[in-house]
Amino acid sequence: MPSDAPAWSLHSRLKEDTIDIGDLPLCRVLVIKDAHYPWLLLVPRRYEAVPRRYEAVEIIDLEEVEQAQLMTEISRVARALKEITKCDKLNIAALGNLVPQLHVHVIARRSGDVAWPRPVWGVMPPLAHDAEEVQNFISTLRRKIWLG
Amino acid sequence: MPSDAPAWSLHSRLKEDTIDIGDLPLCRVLVIKDAHYPWLLLVPRRYEAVPRRYEAVEIIDLEEVEQAQLMTEISRVARALKEITKCDKLNIAALGNLVPQLHVHVIARRSGDVAWPRPVWGVMPPLAHDAEEVQNFISTLRRKIWLG
Repeated sequence: MPSDAPAWSLHSRLKEDTIDIGDLPLCRVLVIKDAHYPWLLLVPRRYEAVPRRYEAVEIIDLEEVEQAQLMTEISRVARALKEITKCDKLNIAALGNLVPQLHVHVIARRSGDVAWPRPVWGVMPPLAHDAEEVQNFISTLRRKIWLG
Repeated sequence: MPSDAPAWSLHSRLKEDTIDIGDLPLCRVLVIKDAHYPWLLLVPRRYEAVPRRYEAVEIIDLEEVEQAQLMTEISRVARALKEITKCDKLNIAALGNLVPQLHVHVIARRSGDVAWPRPVWGVMPPLAHDAEEVQNFISTLRRKIWLG
């Protein structure tokens, strides 16, 4: 990253819709504010390799080493999420049709959840979390993700 | 992979819905039979690292080196698809709620396409390709993906 590049910051829309749970070497890890599904987001804190654009929009905008690191972090977060939730399926996706800043969804799906077997996007308006439940979920996630 | 493991084969549902365009070191590369979007699929020809289950269902079922290779191949295919289609956005996703065999979607999206800005799944029934057009698309893809 050139030294005169502006500081990275989380897109305002992603900020609104999530709770920050911490940083891995490449990505910020966030919980989506929707109690329908255990739903995490990984957002690389990086600029794209090719200069002139502000930040990474596509996975292919990242440098190769960053792409490899992204996979390592997706895998770490997905394993933690699966262990905690005992989900039936993980859904992992980089879409970004609405919010351009590169972000990767990691979602724990159950065969009984409200959107199953459809993808979760646009199916239901978000359901507010119970404050204590989400705090417990985040504490458990933090232990699993950062302490293994 | 243990030497007595059964041979890998493509899930029958994926076989029905796609055209085989070739193999990269890890994944089979397929075109989804839906002319609404330039839509590729990567299917790792691998078994999960932990024994006892038949094949990989989740990205985290792959060994670490295979996960890294998967990212390399996603990136290769996504770059080729973007160059060819000049799309507005790539959508990259491993969902698998209906077909368990691990498969990664790589889809070229345009801001004017029939599902935009929604994800493509379940929006429209597939539209048959024009035979000549899809053959040209596949030839161009093959050159870009395998010859760089």
